[in-house]
Amino acid sequence: MARALNFNAGPAALPLAALERAQKELLDLGGTGMSVMEHSHRGKAYEAIHDEAIALVKELYGVPDNYDILLLQGGASQQFAVVPMNLLPAGKSADYILTGVWSQKAYKEAKVLGNARVASTTEKDKKFVRIPKQSELDLDANAAYVHITTNNTIFGTQWQDIPNTGSVPLVADMSSDIMWRPMDVSKFGLIYAGAQKNLGPSGLVVVIVKKELVAAGRSDIPVIFQYRTHSENNSLYNTPPTFSVYVLRNVLDELKKAGGLSAMEKLNREKAKLLYDAIDERSDLFSAPVEKDSRSVMNVVFTLKTPEAEAEFLAEAQRRGMSGLKGHRSVGGVRASIYNAVPVEAVKALAEFVRSFKK
Amino acid sequence: MARALNFNAGPAALPLAALERAQKELLDLGGTGMSVMEHSHRGKAYEAIHDEAIALVKELYGVPDNYDILLLQGGASQQFAVVPMNLLPAGKSADYILTGVWSQKAYKEAKVLGNARVASTTEKDKKFVRIPKQSELDLDANAAYVHITTNNTIFGTQWQDIPNTGSVPLVADMSSDIMWRPMDVSKFGLIYAGAQKNLGPSGLVVVIVKKELVAAGRSDIPVIFQYRTHSENNSLYNTPPTFSVYVLRNVLDELKKAGGLSAMEKLNREKAKLLYDAIDERSDLFSAPVEKDSRSVMNVVFTLKTPEAEAEFLAEAQRRGMSGLKGHRSVGGVRASIYNAVPVEAVKALAEFVRSFKK
Repeated sequence: MARALNFNAGPAALPLAALERAQKELLDLGGTGMSVMEHSHRGKAYEAIHDEAIALVKELYGVPDNYDILLLQGGASQQFAVVPMNLLPAGKSADYILTGVWSQKAYKEAKVLGNARVASTTEKDKKFVRIPKQSELDLDANAAYVHITTNNTIFGTQWQDIPNTGSVPLVADMSSDIMWRPMDVSKFGLIYAGAQKNLGPSGLVVVIVKKELVAAGRSDIPVIFQYRTHSENNSLYNTPPTFSVYVLRNVLDELKKAGGLSAMEKLNREKAKLLYDAIDERSDLFSAPVEKDSRSVMNVVFTLKTPEAEAEFLAEAQRRGMSGLKGHRSVGGVRASIYNAVPVEAVKALAEFVRSFKK
Repeated sequence: MARALNFNAGPAALPLAALERAQKELLDLGGTGMSVMEHSHRGKAYEAIHDEAIALVKELYGVPDNYDILLLQGGASQQFAVVPMNLLPAGKSADYILTGVWSQKAYKEAKVLGNARVASTTEKDKKFVRIPKQSELDLDANAAYVHITTNNTIFGTQWQDIPNTGSVPLVADMSSDIMWRPMDVSKFGLIYAGAQKNLGPSGLVVVIVKKELVAAGRSDIPVIFQYRTHSENNSLYNTPPTFSVYVLRNVLDELKKAGGLSAMEKLNREKAKLLYDAIDERSDLFSAPVEKDSRSVMNVVFTLKTPEAEAEFLAEAQRRGMSGLKGHRSVGGVRASIYNAVPVEAVKALAEFVRSFKK
């Protein structure tokens, strides 16, 4: 069976070589006579993988020494709550910039736990078709932190430049665009990302957090939710999702072999250009609702002139072996998620299909 | 490479057939051209697996219709906090029966969140070598719930009979002995279990909870931690750990083929008898500290007369391909974890080794 042309929004395509390695080793990790899933998380075989995964995040993303890299569970949706549990003390407020459904959810969870305010929103008419400009941000200089979602999978928008929040720590949900390109991590107080788009399988969330924020975090919450617990125990306080960490290691190892994040950025920009160019050329039938300077390099969202044409497009795409193109159930339309592991060839096939559809 | 004789305490041995199936399908799930890890959690292929896993838990464990079966993340350690977050309202108290390290941790998290009291403890001299009798339980008839740990991996004790808590809901951490035998689930208000001993890989926790407790649960906590959120969304509110659920399905499918829980109980009792008999016969050198009527069928804990003999035993076991026999770092000694997926042959080899050691 040929590989599907996988445009899933997440869980999403993984590098074939990372999967092949997992398949080869599945019954026997390095001659130990057992699967990585059967190894103790306290044993040498697993700990080497765990440490290598963390070291690869550090190396590839250039994470400064004054940051912790934590491998946790519960996904980004759990971090919506865990971030304010740790970083939002009584008497302080946190700023949320709303650019889509996920930042709205993060804001709602924060409001359950403390004071949170909207520092900006592009929800006008529930559209979210752009990222706000720096001048539109109504930032509170005394906020505990400012929260953004760097890439909005549902609406297909992405922050091109990281906003300036002065001395207030910037917290970013990077679930759908972490490591798509090199990034100055020192601009952030905390980054979190569900693994299931650019990094690996679901069930794992990567948190990169400044050590001073970990140290200052609240200690009147359950131990399991304190970042310091996982920082002090190298993310081995409780049993980690060992197989997911193992696949993360495999994925990052392939990323490194492929030239790291500079090479990845070049490829990702090439893929996005291929697709947006095709859509723009076919303005007779296709349109991309997102404003051009807010277009996501990871999730290309577009619509067709009529619901009938859209349905026909999706059905024919399916016949051509293309999966996952239906837009999110909350907005409809078409969405092509072209994360790190989606090959240029798959995007070329889709762009070609857009160019030729009903011509 | 031959399969290791895997006595790991968790993550632990998995059924070979369940792993072989995962290996075979790893790059291509059912002709879809993608790995199960690459499938959307909202797609038909994954949802069928998700629903089958839940249906198998229900069928094999005989879960009554008035219970929800939830597939969550964060392990049992997270449930230590999530249980009181949901079920311990202000003004109420919860009873904890302390039989080891894990129930102590559960109690500590509950105390952060509300009123929790110790209804019984067998910690005397920090030994935890037995399970308390019903007559020793100082139960509060007005408690929100009573919490027990049904099997104590570190000390090797296990509740033989489920305590009677009257009309107060019984909450049980069954991480290390869920589904070792048929069980009357209706005796419990809530059961939770990290998957990585009897059920599958780490990164997944199974919660079986009476619907009336879900409905009565607190709603002033973050949405992500409310059982009702996951109940209302069939554990698909946020992205589940799809690969772990897939392996759970494979494991339960094998369990069903092997005759279900009655057959499993017979095998497990046979394995435990083999090993305890050998230890008891070798009282010249070996001893099992746990009182006989509290002995665990899952974790057989024993010591040797001298530290030197113990070290020699462990080293020689390693040479014979036996893994994971070192006791927990907090107590030392030897521990053989003989969960559902550990074959009788592995236990026979270990029992034989105990019988012949230094003879």
